[in-house]
Amino acid sequence: MKLAELADFLTSNGFPSQVDGQSDLDVTAVNTLENARSGEISFLANPKYRSLLPETQATAVIVKPHEDAPDGLTTVRTDEPYAAITATIIKLHGYRVHPQWGLDDHATVSPSATLGDNPNIGPHVTIADQVVIGKNVTIYPGCYVGDGVSMGDDVILFPNVVVYNGVTIGHRVTIHACSSIGQDGLGYAPINNQWLKIPQVGDVVIEDDVEMGAACTIDRATLGTTRIEQGTKFSNAVVVGHGTSIGKHCMFVAQVATAGSARIGNHVTLAGQVGVGGHLTVGDHARVGAQSGVMKSLPGGKEYLGSPAIDSMTFRRQLGHVARLSDVRRKVQDLQTQIDQLKQAMDDDDNNRPR
Amino acid sequence: MKLAELADFLTSNGFPSQVDGQSDLDVTAVNTLENARSGEISFLANPKYRSLLPETQATAVIVKPHEDAPDGLTTVRTDEPYAAITATIIKLHGYRVHPQWGLDDHATVSPSATLGDNPNIGPHVTIADQVVIGKNVTIYPGCYVGDGVSMGDDVILFPNVVVYNGVTIGHRVTIHACSSIGQDGLGYAPINNQWLKIPQVGDVVIEDDVEMGAACTIDRATLGTTRIEQGTKFSNAVVVGHGTSIGKHCMFVAQVATAGSARIGNHVTLAGQVGVGGHLTVGDHARVGAQSGVMKSLPGGKEYLGSPAIDSMTFRRQLGHVARLSDVRRKVQDLQTQIDQLKQAMDDDDNNRPR
Amino acid sequence: MKLAELADFLTSNGFPSQVDGQSDLDVTAVNTLENARSGEISFLANPKYRSLLPETQATAVIVKPHEDAPDGLTTVRTDEPYAAITATIIKLHGYRVHPQWGLDDHATVSPSATLGDNPNIGPHVTIADQVVIGKNVTIYPGCYVGDGVSMGDDVILFPNVVVYNGVTIGHRVTIHACSSIGQDGLGYAPINNQWLKIPQVGDVVIEDDVEMGAACTIDRATLGTTRIEQGTKFSNAVVVGHGTSIGKHCMFVAQVATAGSARIGNHVTLAGQVGVGGHLTVGDHARVGAQSGVMKSLPGGKEYLGSPAIDSMTFRRQLGHVARLSDVRRKVQDLQTQIDQLKQAMDDDDNNRPR
Repeated sequence: MKLAELADFLTSNGFPSQVDGQSDLDVTAVNTLENARSGEISFLANPKYRSLLPETQATAVIVKPHEDAPDGLTTVRTDEPYAAITATIIKLHGYRVHPQWGLDDHATVSPSATLGDNPNIGPHVTIADQVVIGKNVTIYPGCYVGDGVSMGDDVILFPNVVVYNGVTIGHRVTIHACSSIGQDGLGYAPINNQWLKIPQVGDVVIEDDVEMGAACTIDRATLGTTRIEQGTKFSNAVVVGHGTSIGKHCMFVAQVATAGSARIGNHVTLAGQVGVGGHLTVGDHARVGAQSGVMKSLPGGKEYLGSPAIDSMTFRRQLGHVARLSDVRRKVQDLQTQIDQLKQAMDDDDNNRPR
Repeated sequence: MKLAELADFLTSNGFPSQVDGQSDLDVTAVNTLENARSGEISFLANPKYRSLLPETQATAVIVKPHEDAPDGLTTVRTDEPYAAITATIIKLHGYRVHPQWGLDDHATVSPSATLGDNPNIGPHVTIADQVVIGKNVTIYPGCYVGDGVSMGDDVILFPNVVVYNGVTIGHRVTIHACSSIGQDGLGYAPINNQWLKIPQVGDVVIEDDVEMGAACTIDRATLGTTRIEQGTKFSNAVVVGHGTSIGKHCMFVAQVATAGSARIGNHVTLAGQVGVGGHLTVGDHARVGAQSGVMKSLPGGKEYLGSPAIDSMTFRRQLGHVARLSDVRRKVQDLQTQIDQLKQAMDDDDNNRPR
Repeated sequence: MKLAELADFLTSNGFPSQVDGQSDLDVTAVNTLENARSGEISFLANPKYRSLLPETQATAVIVKPHEDAPDGLTTVRTDEPYAAITATIIKLHGYRVHPQWGLDDHATVSPSATLGDNPNIGPHVTIADQVVIGKNVTIYPGCYVGDGVSMGDDVILFPNVVVYNGVTIGHRVTIHACSSIGQDGLGYAPINNQWLKIPQVGDVVIEDDVEMGAACTIDRATLGTTRIEQGTKFSNAVVVGHGTSIGKHCMFVAQVATAGSARIGNHVTLAGQVGVGGHLTVGDHARVGAQSGVMKSLPGGKEYLGSPAIDSMTFRRQLGHVARLSDVRRKVQDLQTQIDQLKQAMDDDDNNRPR
């Protein structure tokens, strides 16, 4: 693809772009500034990598309009380099092409299951009774789809995913390897100093366009529904407790855990290793920083840090105070010294005063 | 089931109960206050949800004896609503009914394995040599049971569980999807700046009535045994290091990790994302709050918080102190100002004093 | 094996050793001080367990040269008991012997895959197109090896491991159960308040002699390569983000998570539950303590603690200061009292002074 064509493509997709340099150069692939070779296009979105610009072997680089590029480096200039490179990767590379199994001979599919058009079901898959699956669904080897599961169109289950009985999965949902949806939550009543298991009779609903990483675990509700709403994305090893509901277009980084019956709003970002306590609410557009622990409900639209999580500005200020505690202690000693000197001075005064 | 019958059932099961309202109403299912419809019974155990009482569509609600219920709402009154609703769920819903595979044709079972009566082994399961399995055991599709594993009666392995060679599993143990029991722990000796693997020749014993969530990982011991004692329950993604022993009736919330050779007592609660360091002891009935890090041994019977974990009252007091550090700094400045004023006053005195 | 022979074996393997006691005793196995029985040899490396020496039933114990052993206990004395016991375990027990499947009838292997000599591929394994596998490779049941994966000699994949398309695995790599290598990372561009998936077109390279625990998840790079270098060892549930590179001979304890594009040096130790932020660097030989959060780049060769992670000495000093904050507050009040007394004294002076 010539750079001129690429700029036109980006412009017509909502990212107005202009070539600055040789617009007739060809690019066939996208790569990082560090690894790109001739014939590849790269990008600069994070200013931290600016120092790599002079040395990159990329044929061209997508940059911001006023980026100060080295002489002789052809650039494609646009307001949103990160979005533009995304569109470019989709254009030049496309998404993963899956193996095509049709309905593999080594899959075990219940006669009472209903498969939509164009199924792509790998070997060693088990599809249990009364399952209903939409069209163009890919189920990689080793997956288990339990009794009565319902699944929309264009779903992708990567290898060894487990979907327990009665779970509902929307359209275009992608679940990465070794994740489990719908296992029983930690529901026990303490009876006679032992734990009596509470049957977990609720279900899980995963709405359209959700994607989750590998080794995620989503509990079914004790009663009612554990729900993950449209467009929300998880990284790996995310845990969602029973009865929790998570809004639309959230992003959870790796190892986030939400306890049972939490209510997470829309567009919430939980960074890596964040925990959210049970029965708590996190408001829309809240952003919670890495390793924070949400131990009371948090209003939306703000940034939080710490364990327990508090307003991020307050947290940073407290950190600063803690870092200067030796100064405080030294100052307190100094004050004592000054007071002692004052006392001594007063005593001296008293003694020297004419009586 | 009529409410009168339900109250009798609960009373005869150790939870004396009385209907307050129409005892001849029928209930067929349990649901949350929010989601319950007519014909369903709900409960109020957590006072936080009291405000849902007036709007619930439930036919009846299980509440405490002196709960102030809205007019016209039929209640079942008992001292322990949470235990009573558990008994009610068991009565009305029962536990999950598993698919019945018998011994599926697509399971691979070693001729030297011994299966007890009434096996329920799904497709794509592998059972290796010398395995001994009790009666009424359900092994879902995709599980692996390694050489010489021994398993009691009424065990349930959900899909894609892996049990390494030589692990011992008691009666009525339930392990959720994608958990792995008995892999090698992180055992290496540093030799010439490299890591030399120490053969992990110990085993794992999971005692009766243990249940663990999805994606848990339990290391075999280097030497000796990693042990999880009777009745202990884990949520998802719990990690147990090699040679650790965990007592009876503990509860570990999601993403708890205990390092190697830890000794956890009986009835210990570790909340979500807690870590316990290697070779440490946590005493009976200790409760460790979410995200805490146990970095020295902790006596039993107390509540701990923080990383490093300390007595929870002390931790809360320290948190309070940290939150007021700007006050302290301001006060220290104020003290300096007062001292400066005193000095000034003394200087003035000196200057004004008759000589 | 007689103790005299064992001492010779250790000496000739680089751990000069001497029997102190009966050198003609036979030992057949290694065990802990607590669990060892007659005929077994144990060791004392961690002084914490010294109190177990008098009661051990072990036939002999490997100890340091000047260890004060109880009368009558035969010891094998050497400078490095931990390394020596490792060599002894390898000698007496050896490493795990795998089941031998050859190429199991119930494995699904693409005709375009190339298997090296002596394959050991269990049932219910899927090997996709264009895979190239070295010699003496063991792939346990339920594993998935995606299109175009390349794997060296002597690799071991334990049950239900998933290797996505295009991943490269070196020689003697061991991956424990339910781990997933090469899934898509959390790569989305925010477009119109939704998340647009960025195709993850990079790959993963796992170099020689890497071992990782169960339920680990290693993202493929968005562009370029996620790399884990030679000899690095992971415990369970470790997450590596897309495009991260990890140096040689590192050790990551359970539940460590590194975000995308992190650069971890050689010989780095990350203790349990540590998180490392995206695009950060951790220098060679750095050691980061349990539950720490790396939120800026850290120079090598030092020890770090805390979230955010700082120099460990500074962290410990800050912890000490926080623990004594009630003293500081009391002292500040005391200073105020002293100042008030001074003021009072000055007032009195003023009033008593002759005018």
